[in-house]
Amino acid sequence: MTRSHTIAILPGDGIGPEVVSCALEVLDAAETRYGFTTTRTEYAAGANHYLETGELFTEVQDQLRDADAILFGSMGDPRVTPGILERGFILEMRQRFQQAANVRPVRLYPGVPTPIAGLTPERCELVIVRENTEGAYVGQGSTVHAGTPNAVAMQESLNTRAGIERVVDFSFRLALGRRKKLTLCHKTNILVAAGQLWQEVVADVAQRYPEVETDYVHVDAMCFHLPLTPERFDVVVTDNLFGDIITDLGAVIQGGLGVATSANLNLDATAPSMFEAIHGSAPDIAGKGWANPSGAILSLALMLGHLGEGDAAQAIEAATVEVLGSLPALAGADMGATTAELGTRIADIVRSGRA
Amino acid sequence: MTRSHTIAILPGDGIGPEVVSCALEVLDAAETRYGFTTTRTEYAAGANHYLETGELFTEVQDQLRDADAILFGSMGDPRVTPGILERGFILEMRQRFQQAANVRPVRLYPGVPTPIAGLTPERCELVIVRENTEGAYVGQGSTVHAGTPNAVAMQESLNTRAGIERVVDFSFRLALGRRKKLTLCHKTNILVAAGQLWQEVVADVAQRYPEVETDYVHVDAMCFHLPLTPERFDVVVTDNLFGDIITDLGAVIQGGLGVATSANLNLDATAPSMFEAIHGSAPDIAGKGWANPSGAILSLALMLGHLGEGDAAQAIEAATVEVLGSLPALAGADMGATTAELGTRIADIVRSGRA
Ligand SMILES: CC(C)[C@H](C(=O)O)[C@@H](O)C(=O)O
Ligand SMILES: CC(C)[C@H](C(=O)O)[C@@H](O)C(=O)O
Repeated sequence: MTRSHTIAILPGDGIGPEVVSCALEVLDAAETRYGFTTTRTEYAAGANHYLETGELFTEVQDQLRDADAILFGSMGDPRVTPGILERGFILEMRQRFQQAANVRPVRLYPGVPTPIAGLTPERCELVIVRENTEGAYVGQGSTVHAGTPNAVAMQESLNTRAGIERVVDFSFRLALGRRKKLTLCHKTNILVAAGQLWQEVVADVAQRYPEVETDYVHVDAMCFHLPLTPERFDVVVTDNLFGDIITDLGAVIQGGLGVATSANLNLDATAPSMFEAIHGSAPDIAGKGWANPSGAILSLALMLGHLGEGDAAQAIEAATVEVLGSLPALAGADMGATTAELGTRIADIVRSGRA
Repeated sequence: MTRSHTIAILPGDGIGPEVVSCALEVLDAAETRYGFTTTRTEYAAGANHYLETGELFTEVQDQLRDADAILFGSMGDPRVTPGILERGFILEMRQRFQQAANVRPVRLYPGVPTPIAGLTPERCELVIVRENTEGAYVGQGSTVHAGTPNAVAMQESLNTRAGIERVVDFSFRLALGRRKKLTLCHKTNILVAAGQLWQEVVADVAQRYPEVETDYVHVDAMCFHLPLTPERFDVVVTDNLFGDIITDLGAVIQGGLGVATSANLNLDATAPSMFEAIHGSAPDIAGKGWANPSGAILSLALMLGHLGEGDAAQAIEAATVEVLGSLPALAGADMGATTAELGTRIADIVRSGRA
């Protein structure tokens, strides 16, 4: 019997539809080559959808629940007030589908230029796991005496034992299949209560994984270690806000948002996980064929790995790396090929089984 | 009449005393050359003092109140539980002396190697101003059901209109004497209440400084812009926690903690300001003569500028940059000279007026 997967496709705004369409061409090739099929349903979501309908997509989110996975392009438009789509869609999705772990590989692919002098691919092969549902992301905060000289704004960060434990346990399991090292990143000397809870959970869970070595780095010091000695890290686990910050630094190191990708993982199989490139909707270059589809295609690879199609995932990654390494520029007019041409090039390699 | 300044000297732990002693030799030279005098009182503070006396220095902090400025080395020792000195001394000092602005220049000096490929000194000349007394640094947080599966840890970030306004106003004044650009760095799409208050204050204060252009960057995006396009920034103002993180990234860009320096400024002349290198106490290399005294000497320059000795400050900075640019390595056994030799070399240049 052929393996089959149900996939929800959310192209989104700006360059989203262009790069997702490349990813789907690559998916076609992978299905042919690796003998599985997918049922795909495309959904309109994002700024255009919101501007046209006034709907934030909350309405259809429940329809996505039955998908095996969600492939997401990018979202955002200068005409929509910042915060609306972020909170109304991305954060809503992470919460509603309990996508507890945001997993972002930081891998320098051969041939991709990094801004860090002297950094080589062998030294840069780590994964950052960010807690994706709590911490400083739990609410919008509150303000007293707003608009007066006495105004005080409070933000709260809520951290639960259960929320931390599920992402820490996942991180240990991930490390077990890798170089067996887990680093907690926090700011325990200042955020004492939350820091202690994180450290306690890591220490407790570590007992279930005696093969994995554990380590701790403050988030400020991480800004040093990540660019200068990334080889020090295998799996880094951190809270929601620190994860938001250091994964962008991770993306810089690996050559930019264009090649970075992420998985929002539901860890208890109660709802689908979502896979996305990290880049934004880049409305300024949308429609020009200047966007690099690698981020979207690598997120497709992450998705297929998650669905058990490991061979296809590896082939897609290898093909993407091959094409990436041949480009004169990573995006823009000087990329040497259009978005669609790059997609076809990668799809061809996957179909041929050359990768 | 000769200008005279009262200075409190806190060498601290590890390499602190070595590098501060270099700074004092340079100060002697500057006094001779630029015709001012200082009254210096040295205080024991830090891990050794704490281990010997059980005192956290809180006791003598009030004696420092009459100093015109404080020159601080570094603090920390593996024998002291992390957090004790940080909270008991550094944070206590910032609070008690209302050192509202933590000012960290991010400047790539000619000849100093940066890990960012292709970055040149002309492109890297900015100052980060960090709010230094509130935000997530206000307390230790609280935990309910500690030690049980139901444990929840809460951290709060408190942001007052008055606290934000003083540091924002200072930042605008700073920008006015520079390239007239101020960038707010925050995470307004998530930390909505605090973000709004920061944005409101920046918009209000901006009206008093119409010549200064303002701009906004999310803290996660800052991890991109700071290393890749630092020329985009002149003065960056940000909250306590984000400032802690991005100033370490700033230090990476300018060639490392060894050359980074910072001022903890009291803005209302109710207590002295404190000047410190950013590096730690590096107990592993203490006493070996391997520490680079540049951070401490540059913080002396910042201090003298603050005390109105602008010519001396400029000469010290220029002399330090000259010597820094001539070193085969920035620290360690390969530095090509000992800590003390470097101090003397810089002092000689300052004394000769060559810089
Ligand atoms: C868009 C924004 C809400 C989001 C976040 O802060 O998590 C983004 O920065 C990310 O990292 O996915
Ligand atoms: C030592 C620590 C408390 C301190 C901070 O977090 O502010 C340090 O990292 C700094 O940046 O001065």
